[in-house]
Amino acid sequence: MRFATFTANESQFFGAVAKGGMIALSDDFPQWRTLRNVIEANGLGDLEKAASGREVTHPDGSFRWDIPIPDPEKIICVGVNFPDRNAEYKDGQDAPPNMSLFIRFPRSFVGHETPLTRPPETPQLDYEGEIAIVIGKGGRRIKQSEALSHIAGLTLCNEGTLRDWVRHAKFNVTQGKNWDGSGAIGPWLVPFEKDEQITDVGLEARVNGDVRQKDRTGRMLFPVARQIAYISTFTTLVPGDIIITGTPTGAGARFDPPIWLAPGDVVEIEAEGIGVLRNGVIDE
Amino acid sequence: MRFATFTANESQFFGAVAKGGMIALSDDFPQWRTLRNVIEANGLGDLEKAASGREVTHPDGSFRWDIPIPDPEKIICVGVNFPDRNAEYKDGQDAPPNMSLFIRFPRSFVGHETPLTRPPETPQLDYEGEIAIVIGKGGRRIKQSEALSHIAGLTLCNEGTLRDWVRHAKFNVTQGKNWDGSGAIGPWLVPFEKDEQITDVGLEARVNGDVRQKDRTGRMLFPVARQIAYISTFTTLVPGDIIITGTPTGAGARFDPPIWLAPGDVVEIEAEGIGVLRNGVIDE
Repeated sequence: MRFATFTANESQFFGAVAKGGMIALSDDFPQWRTLRNVIEANGLGDLEKAASGREVTHPDGSFRWDIPIPDPEKIICVGVNFPDRNAEYKDGQDAPPNMSLFIRFPRSFVGHETPLTRPPETPQLDYEGEIAIVIGKGGRRIKQSEALSHIAGLTLCNEGTLRDWVRHAKFNVTQGKNWDGSGAIGPWLVPFEKDEQITDVGLEARVNGDVRQKDRTGRMLFPVARQIAYISTFTTLVPGDIIITGTPTGAGARFDPPIWLAPGDVVEIEAEGIGVLRNGVIDE
Repeated sequence: MRFATFTANESQFFGAVAKGGMIALSDDFPQWRTLRNVIEANGLGDLEKAASGREVTHPDGSFRWDIPIPDPEKIICVGVNFPDRNAEYKDGQDAPPNMSLFIRFPRSFVGHETPLTRPPETPQLDYEGEIAIVIGKGGRRIKQSEALSHIAGLTLCNEGTLRDWVRHAKFNVTQGKNWDGSGAIGPWLVPFEKDEQITDVGLEARVNGDVRQKDRTGRMLFPVARQIAYISTFTTLVPGDIIITGTPTGAGARFDPPIWLAPGDVVEIEAEGIGVLRNGVIDE
């Protein structure tokens, strides 16, 4: 079963994804406001039970998909995490000993099927296909050997980037990674039940059907278990925290000349066992 | 009048700072949970009225100071923003055309008088004295000429940093800037009433009484009005957002050999018109 957050008639619900639409479950669990609260209470199993055998409450077309966890305490992104990505920087540096990390605000993301926004300040809107993990059991200094047991679920991310604004300043990519509505997370949360769901799964990004990025999580420079261990060394992870685990080579900036996203384009991020995150592009 | 957030008997309150202690005001305004909600409702004036003539409810010593805004949507830090700071990087690069920005999580900060934590992983805990502004009126693409009118109040920050972890990876300073309890914000919020409160005020940092950093906001490479304008270009600022505006030259990393903070040290950050933020240092 897959779980999602969606908005209909200006109210936000969490619920289960079903054939033909959504089964809203928020009213069944008034003690939980969002899927973050559900995860804190280890309640995905309760949602599953409540949804089983129920009819769709919101048919397709009657709701907007939101980010599965709309109110995470933190969204942490891992940079330069697939082969060839380090070489893309052309700075002559060897692969780094530790992972590069940056932070995005929830408002920099939209949900599934909502278009990404290209702002008037720059045409360099670029896609980055990634798998996002959602923390279930929090912790500090989590051991790498136990790290995967801290995952509640998986989803997808288009870690949309305004490429020239990544290099606007002396260091840090903050401003190129945090334009309102420039990326997407979704469509849904797939409960994490076994390590094989993340250790070596295929991931690809397509623009208008053309495959631009394609790789497997087994080739990550810093696997997800190491990400959880490293990040929790300095900050306490809490339920609902999102880690965006890195993108394969092949973003638009990689082409010569670069190919930026433009209104009318459709970007799809797909990973085995998770699904497809699809977003158009509009001008602000 | 100055406003603060504090905890007593495991309950958190907001209130007014008075001689000898705090005047708790949370119970007078049950519609507001934190000072962020007060600021969203433009309610600092209401707090002031409610506090006037009232007795201290929590005398000094009976409460713990918290971060004035305990639940900001975002905390954005400006790097390399005073003369000589760019030169400290010794990378031969000219001063950058735009400000460097990075993000900190609220849990990386403690309040006034709570010790900073030095973790076992590294001895390189360093101080950075800064002025922090709290956004009152939100907005996107705020004009620089109108930017200061979006400030609700001022406070101080010790933007404590684990120096070697800033350079742990290829780029971004995320992990050196986000150790739990490594920095401090406070003690209180001073309402912002006129531009002169920020345009050219003295700021200094002292360690065990020795002045280590000393400069004036009038010498910032990127003044606060420009910070608000630039940041709001890409992200919508909302009430309660905190911008940490940059530190003068003279952090411990600047010395040869560097002088790191150690248990028993006392760091004081002081700015004209705001006050003194004081924190000790303990080993985790």
